[in-house]
Amino acid sequence: MHIDLLPTAESIVPAELTGCTAVVFDVLRATSTIVTAIAHGCRGVVTVVDTAEAQEVAARLAGENTPVLLAGERGGEKIPGFPHGNSPLEYPPEVVGGKVLVLTTSNGTRALNATIEGTHTVLVGSLLNARAVAQKACRLGRDVTLVCAGTQGKFSLEDTLAAGMVVLEMVEMMDPGWLCSNHQPPSLDLADLAVAALHLALAYRENPRRAFNRSHHGRKLFSMGLAADLDWCASLNTFEVVPVLKAAKKENGYPIIEKC
Amino acid sequence: MHIDLLPTAESIVPAELTGCTAVVFDVLRATSTIVTAIAHGCRGVVTVVDTAEAQEVAARLAGENTPVLLAGERGGEKIPGFPHGNSPLEYPPEVVGGKVLVLTTSNGTRALNATIEGTHTVLVGSLLNARAVAQKACRLGRDVTLVCAGTQGKFSLEDTLAAGMVVLEMVEMMDPGWLCSNHQPPSLDLADLAVAALHLALAYRENPRRAFNRSHHGRKLFSMGLAADLDWCASLNTFEVVPVLKAAKKENGYPIIEKC
Ligand SMILES: [Mg+2]
Ligand SMILES: [Mg+2]
Repeated sequence: MHIDLLPTAESIVPAELTGCTAVVFDVLRATSTIVTAIAHGCRGVVTVVDTAEAQEVAARLAGENTPVLLAGERGGEKIPGFPHGNSPLEYPPEVVGGKVLVLTTSNGTRALNATIEGTHTVLVGSLLNARAVAQKACRLGRDVTLVCAGTQGKFSLEDTLAAGMVVLEMVEMMDPGWLCSNHQPPSLDLADLAVAALHLALAYRENPRRAFNRSHHGRKLFSMGLAADLDWCASLNTFEVVPVLKAAKKENGYPIIEKC
Repeated sequence: MHIDLLPTAESIVPAELTGCTAVVFDVLRATSTIVTAIAHGCRGVVTVVDTAEAQEVAARLAGENTPVLLAGERGGEKIPGFPHGNSPLEYPPEVVGGKVLVLTTSNGTRALNATIEGTHTVLVGSLLNARAVAQKACRLGRDVTLVCAGTQGKFSLEDTLAAGMVVLEMVEMMDPGWLCSNHQPPSLDLADLAVAALHLALAYRENPRRAFNRSHHGRKLFSMGLAADLDWCASLNTFEVVPVLKAAKKENGYPIIEKC
């Protein structure tokens, strides 16, 4: 099983995703918010790139009597006119339970929507559900591509750390001797960036929150007063839920993320 | 002082290099070969992208009575008609001393030649001279961009590891408390990928050779029978030499790498 890791949404080459399991990470905060919402009973999350499109989808769902929450951010800030933002703390069970979340975010949405073509399965990853994602990817048995959203087209520490936690869990499940051996694990073939991510995971496993202090976007959110969000998103393996992006059903046309 | 790290030659944006110290890494094997040759008394290295151009430059230098060695590789193999390849073991002092090396390689040459515009200084880095490069970069006092050549347009473990050794040495020189602190070092501002590289350096500091076993290109060279090259390139801080890429002098037109 080959494990590849893409550092940014921009580095996705759709043809290279054919038939694989893709896992998308935008840890601060889109995918942590999606994982939290689904774990808290959200019926499904529709991710939309454009804000006008998000409003349109939410209005149509509401018109069909689907209980809906419209949410989004740009540059870490709420979008004017949007009742909800991109903080996982906005979505406790009593708010999100039984509802559909329509979400537009800067990078995460783009990364999610760019992976759906050709892949076998698209999972939503974060620190919150890294182990559950690794278990699911092992069970699927296909090559895995870990897709980090990245920050402004560049490598992001937090996304690569979460991807590395999935690599680490998979190595420990499938090739526990690898970490002390000199060679590639016999049953896993790790891309160079997957090896680097695994070492990030080993370095921050006991304190993922510390990585956010050293990450560009983590420090930006901290300076915006969002320390509580950082604490939430840094919590490792809190949830067993593995959200899956399902291709659009013909009648409504939008891909939706649901509980696996 | 900001420390940035570019994962591949393709990710160079010349405008972002303005005024900085750039360090170029193509550890397997171009920059390890350049560092070895210069440490062994080579007068200078001219790096050329194109093979025909390399032959032309070598012929012209020979015509000017400059003792010259023509060397190059494509895909790890010697180039037909080229007397020398890209192995550092081909350049002991008795072969390379007092001569100019004209070198063309797959990725390293491209990365070197792409950095020269606008930068203040371009240094040549490798595991062999990581500490010396870090000392030089600290003394220059400018922002630093570590430029990894990468493998086929992708992140390479060996180049990022060597860049990480430079980051680690700089952190230890300028902010020794950082590694145990929770925040960014006060005098160094590390890009996210520089933090990840630093953790690779911490993981492989005692055994850099092991990283080559886990790297795509390292395993390719091993399978080609080049284990001795890998051993040589994995030797940490063997040389004090810091090769510098000097812009072309008007009369000959090619940038040349010389001892600092
Ligand atoms: Mg992000
Ligand atoms: Mg290389």
